[in-house]
Amino acid sequence: MAQELSQWFQDTIATLTYNRNQRVWSIIVTIFGDLARNPQDKISGAVLSRVTEPMGIRPEALRVALHRLRNDGWLISEKSGRSSLYQLSEFGRAQSNAASKRIYAQFVPEPDTWHVIVLAPANSTTRTKLEASYTENGYLLVTSGVLLGDGPAPCDLGDVFALTGSTPTVPDWLRNRIGSADMARSYADLEIALDQIDGSLGHPADATPTQLAALRTVIVHNWRKALFAHPDLPDSFFPDGWRGLACRRKVAKILDSLERPSLQDLHKDLPTK
Amino acid sequence: MAQELSQWFQDTIATLTYNRNQRVWSIIVTIFGDLARNPQDKISGAVLSRVTEPMGIRPEALRVALHRLRNDGWLISEKSGRSSLYQLSEFGRAQSNAASKRIYAQFVPEPDTWHVIVLAPANSTTRTKLEASYTENGYLLVTSGVLLGDGPAPCDLGDVFALTGSTPTVPDWLRNRIGSADMARSYADLEIALDQIDGSLGHPADATPTQLAALRTVIVHNWRKALFAHPDLPDSFFPDGWRGLACRRKVAKILDSLERPSLQDLHKDLPTK
Repeated sequence: MAQELSQWFQDTIATLTYNRNQRVWSIIVTIFGDLARNPQDKISGAVLSRVTEPMGIRPEALRVALHRLRNDGWLISEKSGRSSLYQLSEFGRAQSNAASKRIYAQFVPEPDTWHVIVLAPANSTTRTKLEASYTENGYLLVTSGVLLGDGPAPCDLGDVFALTGSTPTVPDWLRNRIGSADMARSYADLEIALDQIDGSLGHPADATPTQLAALRTVIVHNWRKALFAHPDLPDSFFPDGWRGLACRRKVAKILDSLERPSLQDLHKDLPTK
Repeated sequence: MAQELSQWFQDTIATLTYNRNQRVWSIIVTIFGDLARNPQDKISGAVLSRVTEPMGIRPEALRVALHRLRNDGWLISEKSGRSSLYQLSEFGRAQSNAASKRIYAQFVPEPDTWHVIVLAPANSTTRTKLEASYTENGYLLVTSGVLLGDGPAPCDLGDVFALTGSTPTVPDWLRNRIGSADMARSYADLEIALDQIDGSLGHPADATPTQLAALRTVIVHNWRKALFAHPDLPDSFFPDGWRGLACRRKVAKILDSLERPSLQDLHKDLPTK
């Protein structure tokens, strides 16, 4: 029975790690976002090692990634005996909370108000920088120098042309750029994996906290990568046949069946020395 | 008395023909638009010659311009004894009626609904052509590939991004482009001339129908040239200190004092042979 479960777990992880170019620091960000977003939440290096090991992540790679995340101000760490405890910094928690809203949302909001902005004429370097500062704040780049944001145009936009309105018409050329073929493939790959697991998910009730954490991590991680490749927009902004909403539902369903383990249970689940 | 009037008329025409590069066909278009827009309205070659002569237009130039306007389908002509009678074609009347709405309007409409259009990506030749087809229909070119129209976005715009909204924010860089320094100068020149005439307008009651027609023509012509250099937009779209509305009021006031002569009176006013 234990061996059967172990086989099932290994198969599932294998199915979900189809995406081989995963970045270790990004996996760790996913783990903290899924399991340890509260201010008191701490995860030991040993737990992180056990959760990531089934994904083929080596201890050295984990150590490098943790070092980088500390340097970048995402994580803070403290010594606890011979081990280290890690937790999100205030900055990391803010980022993680913002991302979680999108990741775990049941549906994508359909704003009834939008605004278009046209930037002042500028050389391409200046314009590209300005465009980036908008897109980083959730704006959609419609065409060079033209951005679409939700809600009414803020008053303090400065030297831009702006029009606030409703129900934008989104033509095919724009839908195909918002949802590129590469992005569509991310969702398609994820959906295939999710469907495969869904059929075999008989055992999760028997899975260990560590196994649950690992399974949740790979699912959320792939979902997050597909999702954050494009801005948060209603389905009408994407090409026909877009699987974003379908994947959102399937991810939610599978995560529901893989109960989020408590940090206490995860730390108890470590092998005794 | 007659000489004094004649001097006043000559001075006034001189003041108003400050703009030396006037095109004769465009002056004729102005005459028909001001005096002969009804389907039955006809003007003889002799009257056109008498009205345009004080502006320094020679009979040969008039003949060439009339020929061109017939060829372009603006005017139709018929023989009447040894003279010719001219009238607007159906096409010419449609154009003239459309322009007259703008020329004689008491105020510029302030639409409460606008729409922005973003054209599909295209090479610059295609894009320029498309932009022109929109601007010819009253759209404002905000920036390359981006246009603003009044009212809600039509449904049949095709392959464009569109957003319908209200109260656009118009930044300085756009206001300075909509109302360029050249355009501001047209209005400034016109206003100086109008102010000069306004002070001296003691005689119009004694002016002949031909003189009234000539005076109206030069005023409307200069106004039309200044006005049609830019799209029909509310004052908030122009740079600070824009004299468009001031000129509109002064043109209206002076035209009011120069009563539009009837075509019958104009033809009676011809010198007897």
